[in-house]
Amino acid sequence: MAKLWALALHGGAGPIFGRDYAPEEAHLRALLKDGAARLAAGEAALDVVEAMVTALEASGLYVAGKGASPNTAGQWELDAAIMDGRTRRAGAVGALQGFESPVQAARAVMERTPNVLLVAGGAATLAASANLARVTDPKTYYGAVDEDTVQEGTPNMGTVGAVALDQYGDLAAATSTGGVLSKTPGRIGDTPIIGAGTWADERCAVSCTGLGEYFIRANAAADVSARIRYGNQPFEKAVHGALDDVKRLGGNGGMIAVSASGELAWGFNSSGLKRALADSRGRFEVGTFL
Amino acid sequence: MAKLWALALHGGAGPIFGRDYAPEEAHLRALLKDGAARLAAGEAALDVVEAMVTALEASGLYVAGKGASPNTAGQWELDAAIMDGRTRRAGAVGALQGFESPVQAARAVMERTPNVLLVAGGAATLAASANLARVTDPKTYYGAVDEDTVQEGTPNMGTVGAVALDQYGDLAAATSTGGVLSKTPGRIGDTPIIGAGTWADERCAVSCTGLGEYFIRANAAADVSARIRYGNQPFEKAVHGALDDVKRLGGNGGMIAVSASGELAWGFNSSGLKRALADSRGRFEVGTFL
Repeated sequence: MAKLWALALHGGAGPIFGRDYAPEEAHLRALLKDGAARLAAGEAALDVVEAMVTALEASGLYVAGKGASPNTAGQWELDAAIMDGRTRRAGAVGALQGFESPVQAARAVMERTPNVLLVAGGAATLAASANLARVTDPKTYYGAVDEDTVQEGTPNMGTVGAVALDQYGDLAAATSTGGVLSKTPGRIGDTPIIGAGTWADERCAVSCTGLGEYFIRANAAADVSARIRYGNQPFEKAVHGALDDVKRLGGNGGMIAVSASGELAWGFNSSGLKRALADSRGRFEVGTFL
Repeated sequence: MAKLWALALHGGAGPIFGRDYAPEEAHLRALLKDGAARLAAGEAALDVVEAMVTALEASGLYVAGKGASPNTAGQWELDAAIMDGRTRRAGAVGALQGFESPVQAARAVMERTPNVLLVAGGAATLAASANLARVTDPKTYYGAVDEDTVQEGTPNMGTVGAVALDQYGDLAAATSTGGVLSKTPGRIGDTPIIGAGTWADERCAVSCTGLGEYFIRANAAADVSARIRYGNQPFEKAVHGALDDVKRLGGNGGMIAVSASGELAWGFNSSGLKRALADSRGRFEVGTFL
């Protein structure tokens, strides 16, 4: 029998504008196929979630990486995190400018420093020392702001993320975002806050998207693990319980999660969640709305 | 019968150098008296923890506020957070330069913005807009680096914090730090990470000190609440369980906590914790070692 693995990706929660999401769905499907093949071939969860989020960032289809939005000062400040469930090592960057892949910068923080979170100039210095690809002309690289978001005037929650269980039983999570549109310079949402937007341990791996401040105040990502650990809650119930807490505080968004036994769960209380899920039992699905 | 209230302060965990800690003990005792009087007079927990941490910062006796250490670039970058357990509102600043009271800047983030965490220049802009007291000459204001720390070459974990339960049954927590000595520019520890170094909700308020990266990876502050909420753990057991997780990951430090029923708990797995505790039942104690 093939060994157990499972993978989930997300391309953000938040308003669905009634337009055609075929490009995102096609992209998620192709990426899911690639990620599933990597896990089936024995690649480590940590490497797969980094590769998946790097591809999501580079696509320009989501509000992360190439698709990020500028802040009120016209700068592109990006946040990302990655966490290794087996060792609980984690790396994150906040308000990073000038590099193509924030998640690769987060991985560099984890691998090259004793720190978990570096922000602003400190994050850029580390990314430079790791020889990560630079963005030399932000206005050209990031391109135009998503017309949908501007028209609706709503915060765009196009964060991307990936969670995986590999054949060795190890879990990992990664998340990357350009943040809400027209955010204040220096604003850090839940994405690089370990425990809020990103979490992985021996029980589960979780990546969130939504109104980040509410995910921070709900400690949303780590809450899934706590519900399993202390409350013996079934996995799906833990995920939806954590999201219900976010809603009770006034926020909305979504999350994807994978358990140590290979269960996949996702949920949202916004109007949509772009997600893709696959596992070694043959599951392979992509969706945007309900 | 007088209504219930409780207060705990800390002046950091970490190495105890065998010198006389009488100045810190005298300061903590005077501050505890002031804070106890405020709570007995009906002041709100949120205002009391802000006032306590502001005074700890201004004293210059701890590695926070006036007593902070410079980073490797010779800059003083400070972190702080405050959280209101009743509403779960929170504010935090990271890598803030140029202001006397990081905790007041954190409160300003909470009161004046929809955000939870602002870093670097964005945090300074907000602090300026709130007319907070500036540090115009850092080298004079912060003074010399603590000789103890330099001699021992160990990370100085002189974070300060306060947790309180007020007469209205509301809980609040606040934490402030200058971070580890000779930290990398842009490094953010657990202090301003809601759920890691600082947490308050309807069950408990928690403030941590120690090797921040391990508190982040253990989700230490929010873990106390999760142990109570999902595991029905007794309050003291929850605090020590959370600290045991930090130790298992390889870290050390301490925390103070107060429960909704007015229990006070503290613990550390470093060589000391400067702390002060008082409540409406007549408890009033200050300590540094065991």
